[in-house]
Amino acid sequence: MAEIATVVDNYIAAWNESDQERRRSLVSETFTEDARYLDPLVAGEGADGIETMIAGVRGAYPGHVFRLVSGPDAHHDRVRFTWQLHGENGPVATGIDFATVAEDGRLQDVTGFLEQPAA
Amino acid sequence: MAEIATVVDNYIAAWNESDQERRRSLVSETFTEDARYLDPLVAGEGADGIETMIAGVRGAYPGHVFRLVSGPDAHHDRVRFTWQLHGENGPVATGIDFATVAEDGRLQDVTGFLEQPAA
Repeated sequence: MAEIATVVDNYIAAWNESDQERRRSLVSETFTEDARYLDPLVAGEGADGIETMIAGVRGAYPGHVFRLVSGPDAHHDRVRFTWQLHGENGPVATGIDFATVAEDGRLQDVTGFLEQPAA
Repeated sequence: MAEIATVVDNYIAAWNESDQERRRSLVSETFTEDARYLDPLVAGEGADGIETMIAGVRGAYPGHVFRLVSGPDAHHDRVRFTWQLHGENGPVATGIDFATVAEDGRLQDVTGFLEQPAA
């Protein structure tokens, strides 16, 4: 069973991976084959769909990097963590992800929320 | 279909209701009959189980009041919000709840996380 901290590290790594094959491999280490991802802006179904979704977001934010900023905080089969998307001039987005974790330790169903930018 | 803000207000009201019958009624307005609740400390299955769980938590915190402090923030069939449990001398716990929402607008599956107390 994969440790949740490793799974979340690989999740962030998948979002940062420019090589399609390596990204798909990281998605497989992170998500079950039938996993789902849903946030206010994008959605992906299945590991292939999630890889394609990540590629699309990466294309929209060239040169940006995702960083884990808090968590993972896990209990039972649930986990949450917070990430930021950094550009040249600092963070451009902050999100909090909630997920259910499958028995093998991979993510099954991920919901992302976006924090409102500070006024 | 119930508005999510009303559902979350009734959810908080259920946690604050001392009368068993009124509390059970608020739980029915808030949760589907087969709903589940899970946080690091307590769990409840079904509307009856959730009502009993809430009664147990209320018994452990006499004189305390739950307050919604942020949200609800919803997209698709997902919602999150933050609450605090207040005692005589201020908040004793802060939690963030994440839920899936059924087609009728009620909560289907609620996961609570507890914020770490400030150092």
